[in-house]
Amino acid sequence: MDANATTERGTERAGVARLSEPLRVGVVGAGAMGADHVRTLSSSVPAATVTRVYDLNDERALLAAQPAGAALASSAEALVASSDVDAVVIASPDATHADLILACLAAGKPVLCEKPLAVTPEAALEVVRAEVASGRCMIQVGFMRRYDPGFLELRRVIGDGQVGSIRLVHAVHRNASSSTSLDDATLVSGSMVHEIDTIPWLLDDELAGIRVESPLVEGFRDPQIATMWTRGGVMATVEVFVNATYGYDVTCEVVGTGGTATLSPGSSVSTRTTGRQEHIIRSDFVDFFRDAYRAELSDWVHAVSTGTVMGPNAWDGYVAAVAARAGIRSLASGLREPIEPGERPDLYAP
Amino acid sequence: MDANATTERGTERAGVARLSEPLRVGVVGAGAMGADHVRTLSSSVPAATVTRVYDLNDERALLAAQPAGAALASSAEALVASSDVDAVVIASPDATHADLILACLAAGKPVLCEKPLAVTPEAALEVVRAEVASGRCMIQVGFMRRYDPGFLELRRVIGDGQVGSIRLVHAVHRNASSSTSLDDATLVSGSMVHEIDTIPWLLDDELAGIRVESPLVEGFRDPQIATMWTRGGVMATVEVFVNATYGYDVTCEVVGTGGTATLSPGSSVSTRTTGRQEHIIRSDFVDFFRDAYRAELSDWVHAVSTGTVMGPNAWDGYVAAVAARAGIRSLASGLREPIEPGERPDLYAP
Amino acid sequence: MDANATTERGTERAGVARLSEPLRVGVVGAGAMGADHVRTLSSSVPAATVTRVYDLNDERALLAAQPAGAALASSAEALVASSDVDAVVIASPDATHADLILACLAAGKPVLCEKPLAVTPEAALEVVRAEVASGRCMIQVGFMRRYDPGFLELRRVIGDGQVGSIRLVHAVHRNASSSTSLDDATLVSGSMVHEIDTIPWLLDDELAGIRVESPLVEGFRDPQIATMWTRGGVMATVEVFVNATYGYDVTCEVVGTGGTATLSPGSSVSTRTTGRQEHIIRSDFVDFFRDAYRAELSDWVHAVSTGTVMGPNAWDGYVAAVAARAGIRSLASGLREPIEPGERPDLYAP
Amino acid sequence: MDANATTERGTERAGVARLSEPLRVGVVGAGAMGADHVRTLSSSVPAATVTRVYDLNDERALLAAQPAGAALASSAEALVASSDVDAVVIASPDATHADLILACLAAGKPVLCEKPLAVTPEAALEVVRAEVASGRCMIQVGFMRRYDPGFLELRRVIGDGQVGSIRLVHAVHRNASSSTSLDDATLVSGSMVHEIDTIPWLLDDELAGIRVESPLVEGFRDPQIATMWTRGGVMATVEVFVNATYGYDVTCEVVGTGGTATLSPGSSVSTRTTGRQEHIIRSDFVDFFRDAYRAELSDWVHAVSTGTVMGPNAWDGYVAAVAARAGIRSLASGLREPIEPGERPDLYAP
Repeated sequence: MDANATTERGTERAGVARLSEPLRVGVVGAGAMGADHVRTLSSSVPAATVTRVYDLNDERALLAAQPAGAALASSAEALVASSDVDAVVIASPDATHADLILACLAAGKPVLCEKPLAVTPEAALEVVRAEVASGRCMIQVGFMRRYDPGFLELRRVIGDGQVGSIRLVHAVHRNASSSTSLDDATLVSGSMVHEIDTIPWLLDDELAGIRVESPLVEGFRDPQIATMWTRGGVMATVEVFVNATYGYDVTCEVVGTGGTATLSPGSSVSTRTTGRQEHIIRSDFVDFFRDAYRAELSDWVHAVSTGTVMGPNAWDGYVAAVAARAGIRSLASGLREPIEPGERPDLYAP
Repeated sequence: MDANATTERGTERAGVARLSEPLRVGVVGAGAMGADHVRTLSSSVPAATVTRVYDLNDERALLAAQPAGAALASSAEALVASSDVDAVVIASPDATHADLILACLAAGKPVLCEKPLAVTPEAALEVVRAEVASGRCMIQVGFMRRYDPGFLELRRVIGDGQVGSIRLVHAVHRNASSSTSLDDATLVSGSMVHEIDTIPWLLDDELAGIRVESPLVEGFRDPQIATMWTRGGVMATVEVFVNATYGYDVTCEVVGTGGTATLSPGSSVSTRTTGRQEHIIRSDFVDFFRDAYRAELSDWVHAVSTGTVMGPNAWDGYVAAVAARAGIRSLASGLREPIEPGERPDLYAP
Repeated sequence: MDANATTERGTERAGVARLSEPLRVGVVGAGAMGADHVRTLSSSVPAATVTRVYDLNDERALLAAQPAGAALASSAEALVASSDVDAVVIASPDATHADLILACLAAGKPVLCEKPLAVTPEAALEVVRAEVASGRCMIQVGFMRRYDPGFLELRRVIGDGQVGSIRLVHAVHRNASSSTSLDDATLVSGSMVHEIDTIPWLLDDELAGIRVESPLVEGFRDPQIATMWTRGGVMATVEVFVNATYGYDVTCEVVGTGGTATLSPGSSVSTRTTGRQEHIIRSDFVDFFRDAYRAELSDWVHAVSTGTVMGPNAWDGYVAAVAARAGIRSLASGLREPIEPGERPDLYAP
Repeated sequence: MDANATTERGTERAGVARLSEPLRVGVVGAGAMGADHVRTLSSSVPAATVTRVYDLNDERALLAAQPAGAALASSAEALVASSDVDAVVIASPDATHADLILACLAAGKPVLCEKPLAVTPEAALEVVRAEVASGRCMIQVGFMRRYDPGFLELRRVIGDGQVGSIRLVHAVHRNASSSTSLDDATLVSGSMVHEIDTIPWLLDDELAGIRVESPLVEGFRDPQIATMWTRGGVMATVEVFVNATYGYDVTCEVVGTGGTATLSPGSSVSTRTTGRQEHIIRSDFVDFFRDAYRAELSDWVHAVSTGTVMGPNAWDGYVAAVAARAGIRSLASGLREPIEPGERPDLYAP
């Protein structure tokens, strides 16, 4: 299937999605995240059908593919090339992202790639350049918070001017324990990268600088406190603590000249027993962002079907990589490091 | 399509839902509720496809059908009979429910009917008898709260024994304003009927009696306070206020010998401005129960596809009608009225 | 000291409380409540000094009296008659209240009596008549909730009309366990009597009827659900559960035509550990109403010093006894029982 | 009255506070804070009596003194020297604090001084040295948060180890608007100084460094974000915003290896009207810390009466001045500045 074919499909589908055939999606990577994407697509996104799954581990691939009625692929490359795959979801190990995206671009197939876009800013920039060369946006990055109802509501409140001009943001991001952010650098690039993307998006602004510190001076410095500055003059304090033990927790408070707006997940059921009132805090971030993942996939499928990408794009992924690199540098230098991604190509003009 | 065919379909689909064709659903009634069901099925339930829509008002039918790629039907009866309809959702005016369900039974087609099952207990009993005569469960009633994550969590906490033996339930059910519950009787049969179904379901118990009162003695007596008694010895107080003005609100507190459990919807975003902290309370119950409607429809489609019905059944709908009738009687008598639905047919054994 | 002397003291003290000598208070009863009153008066009410304490149990009396620098009295009667006692606080067993109040009236000494005013409406009426005969208000009843900052704020919100015309009140009153409300009748007269006083006070209204029921049909019927009707057309549901096990809890929600107002004690410190967020619920009602008790005593001392009583008076105490009696009757009859205290003497005109 | 006399008084009063005469307190300064102290002492602290009040503004002094039955003093110095003043409360302008305290020390009279102890670390150190030379603790500084029930509970939870080893503190301190913190430096020395004292007290630790920044680069840089480091290895982020417009707000979250503890003032009454749930946030910090001020004064009076000072002492006041100076320096340098108060004299050993 070439690029033109995709465009035609998009055109013919527009408006009456269910009259045409569903988008055929291939998923690379069947770990926790990839398997969940397969499940969400097949159980909640009628406009898509998962046709192929690939994972280095065959058993894992089969476990994800079978309930969805998907076939396996012999390799990630074969999946990308497969004639029954219209678009690709990448949820394989971080180091494989950039090459797989480039393969998708070469095949003219839209791709939703889990963050990070690439493991270095340089590799991310290469991806950006390849997409720019292709002349159209085909890459979406998995910053799913942009689809979370709570973050969207917070962004709406800010945009409405309800709390005046924003001066400060306080963000907190905690995991009960992390099996992926295991050292100072991956804490920044794997966990804090969500705040790096979310905060400028919330404010419709750009990051200008970052400083990352920790109360710990040796070993794995977890928690970390980041201070971020935007070009628009807002300061943000960000706590990331990936071994907070008690559960998964994400909150955000925005402070303006007219008041504050706070995103703070509640719980619908509370109990009162033996001298205390309590509610449960879960550990699972996939469950925490359940609605966000569903909206992300559903939105992406519809956008792809109409020949476009509306969500966080390759440029966003590249900028996040630049900022994460600056954050990691700051951990060593102890200084505020500038974030300078260079000029944004016209392709990504808002 | 006869009963055997349905069973075969169910069998062939089991386990690998997406390998087979989606369930073809016809929707009768394209008002707010019906149109929302069409939207939810086509945007969030891959295992179903809406093929036909009928509404007395052609324009309304078209508006709902078109984005879903569904065709119109010339009448409700024609929709039920249509060869491209495997199963039916009924969201037409209450008075039409019983006859349409009977038509579905006659056609051997599974049906999800918005509450009430019928406008009188007698008509509801006729439906039950027809289903019993058919020998299998094909009817589900739209008590969507049984699919609400909050109510399910509350039920789980009760079942786990976390709060001991239950003694009391306090339920509140408020609308900003109601365009459907417009007099004493419809407040009970149209609004309070949700608590009538929810409370025994939460407790795994049955209602034995009901008393309905109001602080108002003339005109439309809104709010109403119901007291309900279960056979298991629990008392419930229920406030239903369909013109509470401020918003839609549903809460429930369960009080046991070991503590309490409370369902109380929160809000993820709050603001602090000009001397107050606040969060929004919405007026729209469809939005309030968004997740419940999606789960209800998804669950029903899967259950139908495997040849069975797992949700609230015709017997539940009949019992609710009997209890609502008793409640309306109580409004006049001022007394506790017994709820005596008679013996449950074996078909509905738990 | 005769009545005139008291009036003169009051007059001479007005406005510049600390220039004159503090009010000399005698406390009858040194159980938990009486001892706490001694402590509060001596540690937080500069305008009073506790001069005498009496308790049947000498040791208990001494324990309360000593830190306050108070002397013991040889009997309750001797305390009332003592020349170094200007005013009396009664916190002795319920059965002794009426006689002690009558003794205070005879001695011309203002009295603050813990609820109940008397153990029967008849005895309470006798007290009222004696006070009316004396020609001035000297009796205050210990309905301390009228001094609670939360209840006062709730009353202010209602009075401001913020939630429109009130239609319903939902009150909850729970103890972890009770050592005083030990049977059906004392639950009403000892615990529910607080709601019996609070609800009409909140609404500036009067109770017209009451019905008390329980989910339990034998043994000690705890919890109880009361329904109360006011002359102004408001219905109230009241749960009293004196063995709720988890802690002390008092909440109140008022529902009007324009919205609701809810009193619900929070907690300033919450923790998040091991999968849950929690805060402490204490068991001690004295601690729960700490501010209320202090304000009650302080207000009473100042009112007495100026020759008047502003708080809940003997008529309030009598009406509560009449309503409690009706509630107890209802537990047996299963019916709504009228509350008919008769005409209010002019002495108690608002 | 000389130092010995005070000690004797203390001894004779111990245990039976009310048997002896109340402590005679003179209050210097009858502005909002001073007048409130007079009111609190005279209405809620029986163990004290306010005998003298001084303010530059006679009218203001009279307004505060009269309801308390206190006389005026002709000057601050005369008040300190007055034979009917046993102990002094200083609530006059900041610049007068150090000299007045030195006068109290010279007169052998215990003193409670509103923060700051002095306007420079050097002046504060002079006060410390004078007290050390006197051989006993006679100075308490008005860091009233140490008496706030919420902060005390937070400190208890930390001390109990409920949330493990502390890694981070997040504090927020907002005023609706400030009439006293009017520039970069007074924001630190007048407002942030509360967090400077509170955080090490909460943790039983000492501050080692501070950095103060603001999102604003010119004009009055409000809000400010401070980062503080303790010798024990904890990092704290502190927001101080003295023109936050919406109300007075103080919160604190402590993050440990086992969970978090959060102090966040609630509100007992909330309303739901016209699409929102809300509660009031007040602007008045005196009202916010009402209980703290009462406990502070009551505790101080009792401590003084027994010949000692238990609350925040002169050393605490000096250290806070050193840290505030470092914070102000950091605003200019943009760097973390060390906090080096020197060695603590034995007099202040914990």
